[in-house]
Amino acid sequence: MNKKRNIFPLILLLLVVFSCKEESAVKSDSTEEAQHPKLILTAQGVKDIRAQLGTIPIFDQTLEKVKAEIDAEIEKGIDVPIPKDYSGGYTHVTHKRNWFVLQKAGLLYQILDDEKYAKYVKDMLMEYEALYKTLPLHPKTRSYARGKLFWQCLNDSNWLVYVSQAYDCIYNYLTEEERNKLETNLFRPFADHISVDSPQFYQRVHNHSTWGNAAVGMIGLVMDDEELINRALYGIKDLKLDANKKDDDGGYLNKDGKAGFLANIEEPFSPDGYYNEGPYYQRYAMYPFLVFATGLHNVKPELKIFEYKDGVLLKSINALLNLSDADGDFFPLNDGQKGMSYYTGSLVTAVDISYKYGNQDPGLLSIAEKQNQVLLDDSGLAVALGIKEDKTEPFEKKSINLSDGPEGKQGGVGILRNDDIELVFKYASQGSSHGHYDKLSYSLYENGEEVIQDYGLARFVNIEQKGGGNYLKENTTWAKQSIAHNTVIQNETSHFNGKYDIGSQHHSVLHYFSSEDDNVQIVSAKETNAYPGTEMLRTMAIIKDEDFEKPFMLDIMKVTSATANQYDFPFYYFGQVLQTNFDYKTPETLKPLGTKNGYQHLYVEATGKANPNNSKFSWFNNNKFYTFTTATNSNDEILFTRLGANDPEFNLRRDPALILRRKNAKNTLFVSTIEAHGSYSPVTESAVNSNSSIQNLKVVLDTEDYTAIEITSVKGNTKLFITANTNASKEAKHNIVINDTNYQWTGNYYFK
Amino acid sequence: MNKKRNIFPLILLLLVVFSCKEESAVKSDSTEEAQHPKLILTAQGVKDIRAQLGTIPIFDQTLEKVKAEIDAEIEKGIDVPIPKDYSGGYTHVTHKRNWFVLQKAGLLYQILDDEKYAKYVKDMLMEYEALYKTLPLHPKTRSYARGKLFWQCLNDSNWLVYVSQAYDCIYNYLTEEERNKLETNLFRPFADHISVDSPQFYQRVHNHSTWGNAAVGMIGLVMDDEELINRALYGIKDLKLDANKKDDDGGYLNKDGKAGFLANIEEPFSPDGYYNEGPYYQRYAMYPFLVFATGLHNVKPELKIFEYKDGVLLKSINALLNLSDADGDFFPLNDGQKGMSYYTGSLVTAVDISYKYGNQDPGLLSIAEKQNQVLLDDSGLAVALGIKEDKTEPFEKKSINLSDGPEGKQGGVGILRNDDIELVFKYASQGSSHGHYDKLSYSLYENGEEVIQDYGLARFVNIEQKGGGNYLKENTTWAKQSIAHNTVIQNETSHFNGKYDIGSQHHSVLHYFSSEDDNVQIVSAKETNAYPGTEMLRTMAIIKDEDFEKPFMLDIMKVTSATANQYDFPFYYFGQVLQTNFDYKTPETLKPLGTKNGYQHLYVEATGKANPNNSKFSWFNNNKFYTFTTATNSNDEILFTRLGANDPEFNLRRDPALILRRKNAKNTLFVSTIEAHGSYSPVTESAVNSNSSIQNLKVVLDTEDYTAIEITSVKGNTKLFITANTNASKEAKHNIVINDTNYQWTGNYYFK
Repeated sequence: MNKKRNIFPLILLLLVVFSCKEESAVKSDSTEEAQHPKLILTAQGVKDIRAQLGTIPIFDQTLEKVKAEIDAEIEKGIDVPIPKDYSGGYTHVTHKRNWFVLQKAGLLYQILDDEKYAKYVKDMLMEYEALYKTLPLHPKTRSYARGKLFWQCLNDSNWLVYVSQAYDCIYNYLTEEERNKLETNLFRPFADHISVDSPQFYQRVHNHSTWGNAAVGMIGLVMDDEELINRALYGIKDLKLDANKKDDDGGYLNKDGKAGFLANIEEPFSPDGYYNEGPYYQRYAMYPFLVFATGLHNVKPELKIFEYKDGVLLKSINALLNLSDADGDFFPLNDGQKGMSYYTGSLVTAVDISYKYGNQDPGLLSIAEKQNQVLLDDSGLAVALGIKEDKTEPFEKKSINLSDGPEGKQGGVGILRNDDIELVFKYASQGSSHGHYDKLSYSLYENGEEVIQDYGLARFVNIEQKGGGNYLKENTTWAKQSIAHNTVIQNETSHFNGKYDIGSQHHSVLHYFSSEDDNVQIVSAKETNAYPGTEMLRTMAIIKDEDFEKPFMLDIMKVTSATANQYDFPFYYFGQVLQTNFDYKTPETLKPLGTKNGYQHLYVEATGKANPNNSKFSWFNNNKFYTFTTATNSNDEILFTRLGANDPEFNLRRDPALILRRKNAKNTLFVSTIEAHGSYSPVTESAVNSNSSIQNLKVVLDTEDYTAIEITSVKGNTKLFITANTNASKEAKHNIVINDTNYQWTGNYYFK
Repeated sequence: MNKKRNIFPLILLLLVVFSCKEESAVKSDSTEEAQHPKLILTAQGVKDIRAQLGTIPIFDQTLEKVKAEIDAEIEKGIDVPIPKDYSGGYTHVTHKRNWFVLQKAGLLYQILDDEKYAKYVKDMLMEYEALYKTLPLHPKTRSYARGKLFWQCLNDSNWLVYVSQAYDCIYNYLTEEERNKLETNLFRPFADHISVDSPQFYQRVHNHSTWGNAAVGMIGLVMDDEELINRALYGIKDLKLDANKKDDDGGYLNKDGKAGFLANIEEPFSPDGYYNEGPYYQRYAMYPFLVFATGLHNVKPELKIFEYKDGVLLKSINALLNLSDADGDFFPLNDGQKGMSYYTGSLVTAVDISYKYGNQDPGLLSIAEKQNQVLLDDSGLAVALGIKEDKTEPFEKKSINLSDGPEGKQGGVGILRNDDIELVFKYASQGSSHGHYDKLSYSLYENGEEVIQDYGLARFVNIEQKGGGNYLKENTTWAKQSIAHNTVIQNETSHFNGKYDIGSQHHSVLHYFSSEDDNVQIVSAKETNAYPGTEMLRTMAIIKDEDFEKPFMLDIMKVTSATANQYDFPFYYFGQVLQTNFDYKTPETLKPLGTKNGYQHLYVEATGKANPNNSKFSWFNNNKFYTFTTATNSNDEILFTRLGANDPEFNLRRDPALILRRKNAKNTLFVSTIEAHGSYSPVTESAVNSNSSIQNLKVVLDTEDYTAIEITSVKGNTKLFITANTNASKEAKHNIVINDTNYQWTGNYYFK
């Protein structure tokens, strides 16, 4: 025992000495200008990693996996085929795999100090050098900006963002002659092709351009080429594009002349870190944003890139993580493919970089643990050490309101969370060319499962059999249309008439957001431009009440219009119709609901007449029960629809909806609740709490200033919800009389 | 160390003395006629359990859970409501919960020796006694045999099977007076109501009757009432029912006069243990079969019930476990609700009893571990000790052929398994009143997921909103019809014209079953009665070949008919159409495919013309790829259908199918393959191996005696499969010439 006591200070002393030695190494290294690697993995990082190897489990495991993967690739041999295919095809897939393999092999060379990896990278780069200088434009012609290795410049840029890192890692391994050869025949022409030769791709504010900027900038940093670095940061010098030209997706190429990496940070991110194209594209753009930013941070610390725009890059990672459901799947706002989640590679990058270069949020470690991998670089080391030192805490997602627009003044996205229920409410701007006509739409989740869905995109990304893996025409004819969303559609036309030019000029406006009360979470917003002359104010709440098994959703959509219109209000549920309290008829043949604006894709499976007070609809999905209750009048129609009409290639899912239709109405109010309740076990065959807990839903007041809803539970208790439609500040004092009772309160809503 | 060596023999000695003491206790106990409990939990079992408590983890945990559950019930108080509801309704659910609670409370009294449980059971039984004697028939009138506590005698019998066990457990706790009261006013009239007063329910061979017989027998064993025991074993004495009467489901009440528990073992089980109604009903019937058998084994060992019919009861458990997919879900043959699995309570009973009273198969322990619970009785103790002693081994499911019919001569069910692929081929008899018109149908699974589905039943068991939780009319109009299955339909009529009287007279016949070769698993069977004048010989194989990523299915359906017919051949896939190599058109409005026999429920979503050689169809489901390749001629039509027409209450799932239609054909051959291949990750967005590995599928010979198929892979290798259509014994020698090449082999098939 005595012996141990004596040894301990000695060990400490040794540790201190050892780390002091490292400290001094940093300083001397950082003064050498030609030091490599320097982008994401740094020379200092290499030393630190080598010192910790074998004692940092998550890093060690990742390294082992990557090593096994790359060793197998080296075993297989190099394959650099002549470019030929669209996404999903052989040459596309091979060049795509190569960029990952090169980047990883470069890391392995540095970390393991084994020349076989450097040689492999060099050999493959030389094959690319030999190929690239012979290449015309890619033979596939569909893109507005064709690449050379790939059918679109976008993928060429992906390649260069990764391969710059590989080049950085073996830079010192190569002779000057070899470097000259690669830079002259491969990297510089490559960077030029995706930038000066493809300005319609490069010179924009768009996720495509972000990749392009980062690609040019990363290779510029490695080559120490100030011209390329400036082209990356500020765009192509002195180039102005035609402000009215559009890209494949219908987005403007460059309406305001802004370009370059900094503009791409400035424009699409709100001060809260919300990315205007939505989480699916943010996830895609995060990688170039963060790796180029990290490269800049390491090579050009004077730029203070992580502090740029009030630290928005790191904030955006927090926003993005909050835009995922309980399983980590991103909400498919705008064009978003379902199933994309924070398990994707770019989010490993995001989480690790956010941890190291941000404020070491211990919640991020829990996500890193779920991801079960880290970057093999300085940031991955930081995360691995954090986990090793038991710093991990849960990443808690709460209700959050994220503003949209460069200055946070173009609407936003509100997320309400209570227990297992999550509601995502979108009142943002158009969302660039990937935006949908979905003003005031929402989707509802229970424990990561969709209850009321957003369709997402109409595309099978990288599945070649489906339109080459690209956007399908149904993305325009269906997925973007308003009827594809859970919001109000006036006169069977989409918001802004489905016109991007108009939609991109407008945004909804936050009315109020309230999440202080754990039992009542509310977001309310107004849209006045989607249908000129019509104002829509939607207030959505998640309410926890003791008479209910789970928190339920309350939805108040107040429509004010000068003219009489037809309003359609769809609810995209999943699963099987269980019960309705209204009658409906099913036709013998199924016909489309309309001829355009997405209506042509919906078959009418049943038509019903609403009840004079409440219409109720229960359904059953994944062994859970759900009930929709809505205040109706007897002129309302209820339609059951199913997607799939006019779909000649089976591109659309056969998803159901219930549509509430109100004809010939000027000012009108839609009030609904959705309850998730009970469960069923096919093993015990028992159904628990399969009925709604709502006895009655009643509008007791609806004026310009106030809307008041009475909710009576099956147990017989009544609660009153009043929302302020006009003066809804937190400080506003209200005093109204409803049915001879006086209600006084301060704030945007009343609930008791 | 020396001390330990000295102690060990002493401990052993003590253990021996102790167990000798127990041994003698058994003997003395078993001579006492009035000893209780004696059914499932025995007095000796109680002693053994008490001795092991705290050292048998799975048992201890189960006990803890059950104790918590029952303590909460006792806390809540007793609720014995006046019967009123159908399944799923309040009174139904309450009386159902009560039977479980009573049984468990009885066990707790014995194991924990705590009188509060005995008192609780007594108090509730007394409430039942007070209620039961006042009860008329249950007010709901839908059943052919109404109960008193429940709407059908079946549920009354469920109650008594469980409550007999509770009564057994507290028998000695009650005074003779109390016992007399319960027996006179509750148990005996209860047993009489479900037997002598409901002969249409009791006096049959049917799963309903099995419950009735067991209920009467169990209470008879507890009450030591030979008359009841004999009524249970042999049926109601001297009672003959009208042989032509039918029950609610269209089954004959009692065609041949057989009745009683022994007849119910004799008739429905084949010598292989296959239960003629299929696994879903077997699972339901297993509980009364096994608990009454265990009671008989314990009380009347001279009956040797577990050796009855060559030990078929225990064999049937092995058969049932083999009738589950990789997740333990039972194949939904006949009327079967999907999701029912070996995690259900009756399978805990089956596994535990099979382990203790069978040959202690260590594979059963692995299932018990997955179930994560055991019976709180002698058999549960045996399993818990087996697990504790590390005897567990995996329960390996291999290809297996299970004969049907009391003597195993009425067709059967063949299950082919290779890696993750499972094929279930049904060539059995009608399957009693729960049978479907599905001769030579199959379903295909990959790792527990349905690839080609059997629809199962049209019912939401115990979900009151859907027809009271009972069979829906679509079960008859859709689920039972031939077009709802993956087999050939002639002239748009179901097998046997959809007539139970005819179907129940026939069965298909095994042609051959071969599972010796790990790479080629085959089942082949013939049906000659489904369509008089038409013979169908179907040979299905799962083949593992190095040119394929996973084992693929080969399907050869040879139809021989004297007349020209239309043949429809549906394939019920799941998911999204990916690609076809034939053209198809989608109509603007969807119309039903026909007007009757299930055809009225299918909408035609697209119609196509087959290719002259191979028609291919790829689809995408749950991130996996599948391809169907079929040898067609240019007159063949291909229909894409979707279920849901003429479904006025949305009782049917909107499932898709591809239907191959061949018109005006006499003798004809359908040859198809289904490949499962590749995968897609929505996180990495990469598609792997998304294309078929089959270049060509060709019929090179089709005679009365032989059918030969050539399969050419994309890699260019060709394999030849020849099946013997006539002389298909294992010993048969064959010698044929195909395209000038001579093939010689012995056995039922050739593959090279």
